[in-house]
Amino acid sequence: MTSASEDFPSITTRLARELQWGECDPAGIIYYPTYFRWFDEATWALFASVGWNVKRFQKEGIRFPAVHVACNFEAPPEQGERCEIVSRIARFGSKSFVVAHDVVRADGVRLASGSETRVWGRFVAGEGASMKGEVIPDAVRELFRRREGS
Amino acid sequence: MTSASEDFPSITTRLARELQWGECDPAGIIYYPTYFRWFDEATWALFASVGWNVKRFQKEGIRFPAVHVACNFEAPPEQGERCEIVSRIARFGSKSFVVAHDVVRADGVRLASGSETRVWGRFVAGEGASMKGEVIPDAVRELFRRREGS
Amino acid sequence: MTSASEDFPSITTRLARELQWGECDPAGIIYYPTYFRWFDEATWALFASVGWNVKRFQKEGIRFPAVHVACNFEAPPEQGERCEIVSRIARFGSKSFVVAHDVVRADGVRLASGSETRVWGRFVAGEGASMKGEVIPDAVRELFRRREGS
Amino acid sequence: MTSASEDFPSITTRLARELQWGECDPAGIIYYPTYFRWFDEATWALFASVGWNVKRFQKEGIRFPAVHVACNFEAPPEQGERCEIVSRIARFGSKSFVVAHDVVRADGVRLASGSETRVWGRFVAGEGASMKGEVIPDAVRELFRRREGS
Repeated sequence: MTSASEDFPSITTRLARELQWGECDPAGIIYYPTYFRWFDEATWALFASVGWNVKRFQKEGIRFPAVHVACNFEAPPEQGERCEIVSRIARFGSKSFVVAHDVVRADGVRLASGSETRVWGRFVAGEGASMKGEVIPDAVRELFRRREGS
Repeated sequence: MTSASEDFPSITTRLARELQWGECDPAGIIYYPTYFRWFDEATWALFASVGWNVKRFQKEGIRFPAVHVACNFEAPPEQGERCEIVSRIARFGSKSFVVAHDVVRADGVRLASGSETRVWGRFVAGEGASMKGEVIPDAVRELFRRREGS
Repeated sequence: MTSASEDFPSITTRLARELQWGECDPAGIIYYPTYFRWFDEATWALFASVGWNVKRFQKEGIRFPAVHVACNFEAPPEQGERCEIVSRIARFGSKSFVVAHDVVRADGVRLASGSETRVWGRFVAGEGASMKGEVIPDAVRELFRRREGS
Repeated sequence: MTSASEDFPSITTRLARELQWGECDPAGIIYYPTYFRWFDEATWALFASVGWNVKRFQKEGIRFPAVHVACNFEAPPEQGERCEIVSRIARFGSKSFVVAHDVVRADGVRLASGSETRVWGRFVAGEGASMKGEVIPDAVRELFRRREGS
């Protein structure tokens, strides 16, 4: 993510992960789809940090399916290495938003850098049915705004 | 992938998949990292189709780690839906290459479109150790060239 | 499964799988939870073979959650090896049933042998809510009976 | 695991997990192979707690492949629920051992109870090659013995 594409002054969350045996491939390094599992988990954690946890999403009938994702892999972690997924809102659109994620190893080296573009949507007739994008409420957007001095 | 970025006249492989219960999420649709599992499997299948199967890679000491991946999700499959991952080489660089993948449902609708940029590399001192990119041999490149009339 | 515990003369299904890169661990062999993914997929395939496919289960509001599973691992497959999951009903109880699965490599060697005990259940108030076991209808049971001469 | 089969006075480790969106199935509960991922992770954590972390295993050339696993599922967690995998050595054989795992939800309810029988083995000629079981050293065994008063 270039700074140009990150125009929202977002709070940041850090999700800790330790690379597991079953998340590696026969080369002994991370199996790359694992990064996207981490991104998805980190996005849930980012929203939970502002009060939008699983129960809130269920109560509101809102989901945030991904419509585009991308990732650069810079250096691969090996089993047992501790990482943090550092996440923030890079941009809010009207009905969609971009979450930027950096994966940083315990020694400070960035291993990967990616993003997820997600839609703020409502299931029209229950889970699994067609989803309809909705305008992201201002109140939701403001929850992610970084406070001065923080 | 725009046509501009696909400058190699590649053969195409089609890998069949049926979306499984365990590949879906609580919304009843594909859990998006599943797409990347499919892409990885499809890239192995693309190479196997020209004789570079698992045993060949092991014998040659070559691997092809991903350095960048991206995907657009256009419509989500549900459990039991049959899809094909349609794959080809979009571009050959000196030491890297891009594989383009479309996921097409049985009714012909494209569900997703993505790409993997991978390095042609050799492990310097066994699996898991540092890898060194190598120039992709012309002979390998030519294996993927689409024949006239095919 | 001993023969004593397999008292139902069941049809058999064979589900083909080729062990994928991402299904292996750093030892270069199958990551063992992969077997249970295969078992779950094979149970869906066994039911689909008698007309109980995904859509039928959804229409009837029936699910079959596992309450006990077990597996012996006899020899591990490596990436690229072709296997079949050979599945049949080992036993029908009143509200539960046991599916037995053998994983057999292309050369005929059995790699693993396991079982799943599942409940025939109905969600009381939509997906995710409490489930209530139901007596398995005779008509369902009979669908799995092996015909003479077959 | 009955008490009869747990004849080793083992230390216990507790591994925290929060059930993720991607670890659930369309019924909105845990996809059962997830339990075995957790068991594998908990066994690594149990060994790491006595000094046998990933690096130690690699240095010693030792692995501990599973030969038998089983699990009872008593109640399913839903997305966002916090669990602990409580693990201990249930039994040491000459060349194998049994790890018992309980999955306990934050409210104290046990959700699942399982075991893994694993072999203490050495790869004869590098990763992926045939493995040979070895007698578990007394020194390793004693690392897991629960101290009086602890």
